[in-house]
Amino acid sequence: MAVEPFDVVDLIRTKRDKGTLSTEQLSWLVDAYTRGYVADEQMSAMTMAIFLNGMTRDEIRDLTLAMIASGETLSFEGLGKPTSDKHSTGGVGDKITLPLAPLVASFGVAVPQLSGRGLGHTGGTLDKLESIPGWRAKLSNDEFYAQLRDVGAVVCAAGAGLAPADGKLYALRDITGTVEAIPLIASSIMSKKIAEGTAALVLDVKFGSGAFMQDPARSKELAETMVQLGKDAGVKTVALLTNMNVPLGLAIGNANEVRESVEVLAGGGPADVVELTLSLAREMLALAGQPDADVEGALANGQAMDTWRRMIEAQDGDPDAPLPTAKESHTVVAEADGILATQEALPFGIAAWRLGAGRARKEDPVHHAAGIDLHAKPGDAVTQGQPLFTMHTDEPARFERALEALDGAYSIGASAHDYGPLIAGRVD
Amino acid sequence: MAVEPFDVVDLIRTKRDKGTLSTEQLSWLVDAYTRGYVADEQMSAMTMAIFLNGMTRDEIRDLTLAMIASGETLSFEGLGKPTSDKHSTGGVGDKITLPLAPLVASFGVAVPQLSGRGLGHTGGTLDKLESIPGWRAKLSNDEFYAQLRDVGAVVCAAGAGLAPADGKLYALRDITGTVEAIPLIASSIMSKKIAEGTAALVLDVKFGSGAFMQDPARSKELAETMVQLGKDAGVKTVALLTNMNVPLGLAIGNANEVRESVEVLAGGGPADVVELTLSLAREMLALAGQPDADVEGALANGQAMDTWRRMIEAQDGDPDAPLPTAKESHTVVAEADGILATQEALPFGIAAWRLGAGRARKEDPVHHAAGIDLHAKPGDAVTQGQPLFTMHTDEPARFERALEALDGAYSIGASAHDYGPLIAGRVD
Repeated sequence: MAVEPFDVVDLIRTKRDKGTLSTEQLSWLVDAYTRGYVADEQMSAMTMAIFLNGMTRDEIRDLTLAMIASGETLSFEGLGKPTSDKHSTGGVGDKITLPLAPLVASFGVAVPQLSGRGLGHTGGTLDKLESIPGWRAKLSNDEFYAQLRDVGAVVCAAGAGLAPADGKLYALRDITGTVEAIPLIASSIMSKKIAEGTAALVLDVKFGSGAFMQDPARSKELAETMVQLGKDAGVKTVALLTNMNVPLGLAIGNANEVRESVEVLAGGGPADVVELTLSLAREMLALAGQPDADVEGALANGQAMDTWRRMIEAQDGDPDAPLPTAKESHTVVAEADGILATQEALPFGIAAWRLGAGRARKEDPVHHAAGIDLHAKPGDAVTQGQPLFTMHTDEPARFERALEALDGAYSIGASAHDYGPLIAGRVD
Repeated sequence: MAVEPFDVVDLIRTKRDKGTLSTEQLSWLVDAYTRGYVADEQMSAMTMAIFLNGMTRDEIRDLTLAMIASGETLSFEGLGKPTSDKHSTGGVGDKITLPLAPLVASFGVAVPQLSGRGLGHTGGTLDKLESIPGWRAKLSNDEFYAQLRDVGAVVCAAGAGLAPADGKLYALRDITGTVEAIPLIASSIMSKKIAEGTAALVLDVKFGSGAFMQDPARSKELAETMVQLGKDAGVKTVALLTNMNVPLGLAIGNANEVRESVEVLAGGGPADVVELTLSLAREMLALAGQPDADVEGALANGQAMDTWRRMIEAQDGDPDAPLPTAKESHTVVAEADGILATQEALPFGIAAWRLGAGRARKEDPVHHAAGIDLHAKPGDAVTQGQPLFTMHTDEPARFERALEALDGAYSIGASAHDYGPLIAGRVD
């Protein structure tokens, strides 16, 4: 092995002692880790030191660039149309990509949405779309570019070639308690998005009980860090700070979230899902040069739905096929008259997960029909005996554990708890 | 695999977020790590969190007890004489164990000195003794007990059975920049010493440029932590805080340190080595019930030397055999008249290491004849051309790198730098 220009223990000590790592040191570190010269146990000590001592903006930029350099990068320059992408930090009932990608693409903008699967209580876009009979997440490079050119919207699995250092590092952080560090989250998300080659990017950075980060101030810091990283790399980047204290929409699961997305594309759907879809679409289209696009009209007149159907069919899915339904369901009713006061995103996300909609380990399957349909949202008047929500699963033994998660997750009172606005801020 | 009572990621997060780990959690953690259920990368994230967020006294005690419980423990109850042991945190020219163990044993006290090898710029007691033709570090359990009973002093290699969790953890800390954390150092040292079964323990905790910890205040904190751990475990424990800014004695190496130790046992030797040997011997003997033992007399009258000879012979060494000498030597002389003002321990330790006296990796051999003989100490008057020190090695190419380390390591001036007293404090 060639002599390495740095000693990883020196670099760990530097960060441990609140020092700053240079561009060359971070570049070497990520490369050496990807090559296996720096061991997992060394990198996990480094990530804990980063977690506790932080990183400067320059360090975060250098870390991100090093992760991009660890793999291949895509380019959409020959596509003949602008690209605009969206990334959400994940939430409960967050199916926004499904109506959003075809909506934006219906205006002639390419939306290359490389997505992941869900882990824990937040769902994954690929898991949801796999509810659709025939639909496949994996595309060849040629298929990906052809669909982007012909349909405009592609939601598919990211190949292992983009920012492989991030994949390795994320798996390590997951088992070493170092996921929630802003420098590491920001560089992880942005390295993949920048490597993906989009010209514009809108970030949906969530806060609240169902989000990755509960604290709005920390979410804002994350958003600012990511927007800066995007700009530094020449990607037009904007972030919305959105509220994830309450589940988004009425469906939490996989197949039922597809159903709700199709309702939105048909001009209906829950108000919060429509509002967030439209807001993100306006941002994406503005960055792609169409600040005045009539996004509401595109939902009302079927333009977005047409693109949805072509997007699903291009990946062998049947947009008209019935979606799977669960064998068993269990409905919970209101115990009193009043106003639905609270409905907490995190316990509902955990309950849906326990019903089978999510996975605990990467290699687990998900049950596409499992999940929860909400029949009321905070602020709605309810009467005793009225259904509040229905749980779906193939295995009735799961109801009990789901109900345990929901203990205290909702309440009826004289007035609704004020969860604040859905869109709490914007960073550009 | 049985269901584990704790999730290691939860425990890492607890320490990461400045929480406190319970007795049960630390016991489980160390056991699960020893069994391989907790991975190295998880333990290194934990040790970095401990490094940066510290541990309470209770946590340090629990960690130490858990490491003791990871392996076997020795007992000297059937020996018929008191036991008293010494541990040094290591320094440059620190050969004190060699005269000390036979000196104390010559008063009928058993000294079970389970020792290690050197790594980096601090030497290892076993490496020094292996300069003696025939001497072997490895003893069977039966040989160990028999020598302890018949001779009183044993310096030998610790078996892998004592606190194996510590061995595994130390190797991990070494490559992840988490060596210098007081909770981890204290539990590492004390778990082995308590498992070893000694009834009394004197700690030589060093500070200064050649020590593991430079800062006297941090050394004091380490000493207090270790003394408390010893007392909690029922071991009578005292610590001396000693100065390691200047090399101890005139010999730095292996064979030359044995030579100097024999001089001390013969009633001579450098004043600092004699002073520290006598002070530690008085502490060890006081803890063993002999506060008035005439330790100076035992060096002067040959009593300690007799025990030394028996100790070496019992391990197949020949105390009369000539010690190895190096093929090449290089003497550095004073460039001017004056007082030897400075003589820094760390660069002299590194220079001796580069000459071959130490090892960079565990598996490397050491060159027993390599090292440095000092001809003057700070405060000595020197005249131009007078030898200051002589370097020894079999490989003359090493002189240059040793001299590089010594750049600025010593100086001649009008008066000596005040390095402070050799013994700066005592903790009991």
